[in-house]
Amino acid sequence: MRLPAILALTALSSMALFTAPAAAEEGMWTFDAFPTGQMREDYGWAPDQAWLDRVQAAAVRLTGGCSASFVSPEGLVLTNHHCVATCIFENSTAENDLLLNGFTAATREEERACPGQQAEVVTGIADVTDNVKGAIGTATGQELVRARDSRIAQIEAAGCPDTATTRCQVVSLYGGGQYKLYTYRKYSDVRLAWAPEARASTFGGDPDNFNFPRYSLDAAFLRAYENGQPVATPAHLEWNPRAPEEGEVTFVVGNPGSTARLWTQSQLAFEREVRLPLLLATYSELRGRLINAMQQSPEREREGGNMLSGIENSLKVFIGRTRALGDPAFTGRLTEAEQQLRAQSAGSEALGDPWAEVEAATDAYRSLYLPFSYIQAQGDLAGYAQSLVLAAQERAKPNDERLPGFTDGALPLLEKRLLDERPVYAWLNELMLQWNLSKAREYLGADDADARLILGRESPEQLAERLVAGTRLADPAYRRQLWEGGLAAIEASDDPMIDFARRLNPRYRELRSAVDAQYTGPLTAAGARLADARFAAYGDSVYPDATFTLRINYGQVQGWTERGQAVPFATTMAGTFERATGNAPYDLAPAFAANQARIDGSTVYDFVTTNDIIGGNSGSPVIDRAGTVIGAAFDGNIHSLGGNYGYDPLLNRTVAVSTAAVQEALETIYPAPHLVRELRGR
Amino acid sequence: MRLPAILALTALSSMALFTAPAAAEEGMWTFDAFPTGQMREDYGWAPDQAWLDRVQAAAVRLTGGCSASFVSPEGLVLTNHHCVATCIFENSTAENDLLLNGFTAATREEERACPGQQAEVVTGIADVTDNVKGAIGTATGQELVRARDSRIAQIEAAGCPDTATTRCQVVSLYGGGQYKLYTYRKYSDVRLAWAPEARASTFGGDPDNFNFPRYSLDAAFLRAYENGQPVATPAHLEWNPRAPEEGEVTFVVGNPGSTARLWTQSQLAFEREVRLPLLLATYSELRGRLINAMQQSPEREREGGNMLSGIENSLKVFIGRTRALGDPAFTGRLTEAEQQLRAQSAGSEALGDPWAEVEAATDAYRSLYLPFSYIQAQGDLAGYAQSLVLAAQERAKPNDERLPGFTDGALPLLEKRLLDERPVYAWLNELMLQWNLSKAREYLGADDADARLILGRESPEQLAERLVAGTRLADPAYRRQLWEGGLAAIEASDDPMIDFARRLNPRYRELRSAVDAQYTGPLTAAGARLADARFAAYGDSVYPDATFTLRINYGQVQGWTERGQAVPFATTMAGTFERATGNAPYDLAPAFAANQARIDGSTVYDFVTTNDIIGGNSGSPVIDRAGTVIGAAFDGNIHSLGGNYGYDPLLNRTVAVSTAAVQEALETIYPAPHLVRELRGR
Repeated sequence: MRLPAILALTALSSMALFTAPAAAEEGMWTFDAFPTGQMREDYGWAPDQAWLDRVQAAAVRLTGGCSASFVSPEGLVLTNHHCVATCIFENSTAENDLLLNGFTAATREEERACPGQQAEVVTGIADVTDNVKGAIGTATGQELVRARDSRIAQIEAAGCPDTATTRCQVVSLYGGGQYKLYTYRKYSDVRLAWAPEARASTFGGDPDNFNFPRYSLDAAFLRAYENGQPVATPAHLEWNPRAPEEGEVTFVVGNPGSTARLWTQSQLAFEREVRLPLLLATYSELRGRLINAMQQSPEREREGGNMLSGIENSLKVFIGRTRALGDPAFTGRLTEAEQQLRAQSAGSEALGDPWAEVEAATDAYRSLYLPFSYIQAQGDLAGYAQSLVLAAQERAKPNDERLPGFTDGALPLLEKRLLDERPVYAWLNELMLQWNLSKAREYLGADDADARLILGRESPEQLAERLVAGTRLADPAYRRQLWEGGLAAIEASDDPMIDFARRLNPRYRELRSAVDAQYTGPLTAAGARLADARFAAYGDSVYPDATFTLRINYGQVQGWTERGQAVPFATTMAGTFERATGNAPYDLAPAFAANQARIDGSTVYDFVTTNDIIGGNSGSPVIDRAGTVIGAAFDGNIHSLGGNYGYDPLLNRTVAVSTAAVQEALETIYPAPHLVRELRGR
Repeated sequence: MRLPAILALTALSSMALFTAPAAAEEGMWTFDAFPTGQMREDYGWAPDQAWLDRVQAAAVRLTGGCSASFVSPEGLVLTNHHCVATCIFENSTAENDLLLNGFTAATREEERACPGQQAEVVTGIADVTDNVKGAIGTATGQELVRARDSRIAQIEAAGCPDTATTRCQVVSLYGGGQYKLYTYRKYSDVRLAWAPEARASTFGGDPDNFNFPRYSLDAAFLRAYENGQPVATPAHLEWNPRAPEEGEVTFVVGNPGSTARLWTQSQLAFEREVRLPLLLATYSELRGRLINAMQQSPEREREGGNMLSGIENSLKVFIGRTRALGDPAFTGRLTEAEQQLRAQSAGSEALGDPWAEVEAATDAYRSLYLPFSYIQAQGDLAGYAQSLVLAAQERAKPNDERLPGFTDGALPLLEKRLLDERPVYAWLNELMLQWNLSKAREYLGADDADARLILGRESPEQLAERLVAGTRLADPAYRRQLWEGGLAAIEASDDPMIDFARRLNPRYRELRSAVDAQYTGPLTAAGARLADARFAAYGDSVYPDATFTLRINYGQVQGWTERGQAVPFATTMAGTFERATGNAPYDLAPAFAANQARIDGSTVYDFVTTNDIIGGNSGSPVIDRAGTVIGAAFDGNIHSLGGNYGYDPLLNRTVAVSTAAVQEALETIYPAPHLVRELRGR
């Protein structure tokens, strides 16, 4: 896949959602609740606490939405090419297209800064459930949300007074059942060290995405810096450029973005009936608009490529989820799991009827979803404007009264994202805005009050053109001026995009309050009791839905059976040359073609494992029993797309690029002898 | 809506699918089974046979997919502007854009031929059920389909020896429960007499499509010719340019394309789980590609507009159907209706279990649907090639061994469609092919045998470009040469598009045979028994699903209640000027703007009725009790989109343009005094 974070799970080893074989690979476990007993039962062995601590200390979260790991003592980070594609793209020009050509920094000085990117390492996990729940007390609706967010802001501020090198984040697990304070060591200067040609990573393009066999060098190296120097990272994973062995145990350690495995039937119905059809139609149209726009010139082909990959990846996820939720056998098992929990919980007075409460909240959300979506504009420039306006308003308030995302704990990363210099393409912004504004009118209706507020009497095309042509927000200096000028600067600005954001702002706040009051609040209250019911029924065997926080899961190197045909567990580099047609996206990366004779075709290239992952896990190290890294997860197979709702051990697979293939690339295709030495540890 | 045919119904007055009020507007009745008793019960009056005969004789089917009526003794035909938009478009050039400017033929000589268009009037309906069922006997699978099609070809040939002026068509009603031979008087020379500016018809564009209140002059006049002379049509409807009255009874007479109201649960599941998500995603992408391509130049804006309207209209239908099938209240009633029929039929030995047979057939179709869809290329040129290749092969066979569509009864219209001269735009064909070929690879999978057969080693972009650049099929003379040259000419052709069609042809036939054997055959066998069960349970109160054959239904002029707000039954022309923003698609048609002071603002413009219609009904006359025409149906409201599966009398509405508004346009906006005189009958 491309797994930049968006997506979480709750299955139960004792009552797995799907008929499971012996191995219980399902589960995205937090590091403070690794199922040692269960794994020992499944595999006759499990890692000890020291092993877990070492791995945790080397695991990296990339705030762009990916996972990674330290693999040298000098801050070298292994992740996927697709996780740094935006960075490479933003360091490219028409004359020097690093995506096309690949990039190897011959020296540390040549390493390139990644705008907006930050690397984070978990240094502590503390349970703050009682604290947060105490603050919530018996509050409901919007009051609940405010009490919760306010207490979280206080906990985060108290936990990380040094916001320059640390970050505190309270996450809600089990939909409000638990709250944990994660403390991170953060590195906000992240630079690109090595990347292959994009085609080496995207060989097979969208047709091969989420498929296997696969031939993708989806790997890249970053380096974390501080005070202009590479960071010392004694806690790193040992680089082990060997081939994976069928059946060997593997761990994937990373940050799955979100899952919906604990969702109730009414939440799934909303997804199936409302959200997925909307996303399917509107993102497909956006894809079409962009494909055609890119055909207009080689510049646009280059400038739009990164966005197109992202859109196509998202679409494939939406299509896979639509299929999963349209498969009666699959949804039948989800229904059964809910019925089982209801049966197990019958008779508990404290429980009430959280399913009915979730249903009522979801029903209320049906009428809020469209306006709340479309009041938020799309594209870099519109996003800058909306964030700058909101930030100016929120920063004028005390920390514990601000919206999440604008608290003292969150501001440093927001500031970095808003002010880092990066290229902005006007035509792309205009295309995104045209699309989003025209969909707003289509789905809200031309006579809807919100559609009229958004468009006024302008057409989507006119409004998009006027805003993009007139705005100065592409200039980071102007953004800084507005950021530093605060509310006065925002109010004084005559920038049309800022004016547009100001115009929508009151209605955005109104809708957000309504969502808090009618949806988020009731959901959180019901979620806490649903979680208690699960703990009572299943104890420790329940893991929380994914939240883009660090998780670990265990599995093994294993193929699967597709319509009666065995799919082998790995491919070799020779296979690339057999699959190549000469035509995009099956054209060989030039350096592959040039070095074909020298490449060891028997090198294991990509491989699959039974590990349970999802978007956000991209770049996660695949770790063997010894704790050494043997691959980087970059995708799931097509069956993994239903994994958002439930894990199927027979079919769900993680797809990873082997360290052996990366090593071959570093030695033969995109030579980086200094990195080979660094990885070897001498 | 735009209702060019694709869509039909079966509800039961005695057990309507939806909680019905007193009036029983539901039902698309054949003229040989008008529910006189039921209507008399509902309205205290019903038309007699003479009334029905008069109306039937004036009702016109347009083979482009619309309905219409004769409204003068000299072959003048009333239909919708959107039904003739393709004709107007194909008569336009960049210098003389008739869509933009509108068209009034000052004399008969100036009337413009419509390529591919044919007008047809029903002259007889005969029951041939025993004949066709006798031929089928106990055959199953592909044998059933062959026996049926062969007998139908024989019946049609015997019924209409004169294929120059008559056309015979056997239709299957109730999914195989009945077969009726429809005999038509046909007029294959149809010309454009009058059309307003396109903006007068499309005011509000896609945002207002399927919505109401509405301000659309979606009307146009054609004229039927024979031997170069206007046809004499003594049987015509009297033109009555008066405002409709709230509550008055109305009939809509036309050709609803298809409905799915008799479908079983498994057929609906296929629609919801497989077909609609695919159409939603792929057509949205096509829409996006086309929108962007059209923005590249004014020429493309003009050349692509007609296709874009068609795509957007289809998409809105798919979105509406997706919503209907995602609404548990709606689908619950469909489920209930099936359960009721099952209960009523319990104990019938002859019935067997047709529901299980339909489910098995639908399951088999799930694996055939994608390859069978993608083996059929898209776009005018690829369509020409596929038809020419198939026609050459089929015409070499005896009539009763040919595929439907290539029998003696069907060949004249096919020939006209293939050989009529019309403009073909290379870029549009390339865009359609690129899209379709890339979707074939995406949905079949890059490694799929059919995907490889279709693409070879070329990319979708390369293949599309090569085929469109090299083909001569845009030239009608070349098409005629291939048509007249038969199989030898096809086999000798080095045209790349013909070569492409030849290459796919064997697999197309293989897949078509598989569809007949595993899907169509079993469905037809089960359908016949399901129909018998319905007749046994509900008798005459069951109407057949729509089949693009002539139907009549009754209803009344009536608004509805939308989320607590009353929607009035009509708009006035003054409302157009209030709604206009100056920006597309809410910009006034220039002639409206120029004549604003002279237009009588109180003229009733568009109105809604409770008549039960669907795509294909576009252009249908709205007829009052006296048998005079008071409007032309051109759309349904948004709730009518679920009407494919079931009719909701509280919400479903037909949208029509009033004859009063058309008269005002003929007198004041797009003056045509000769037509005013002709319509007045003197």
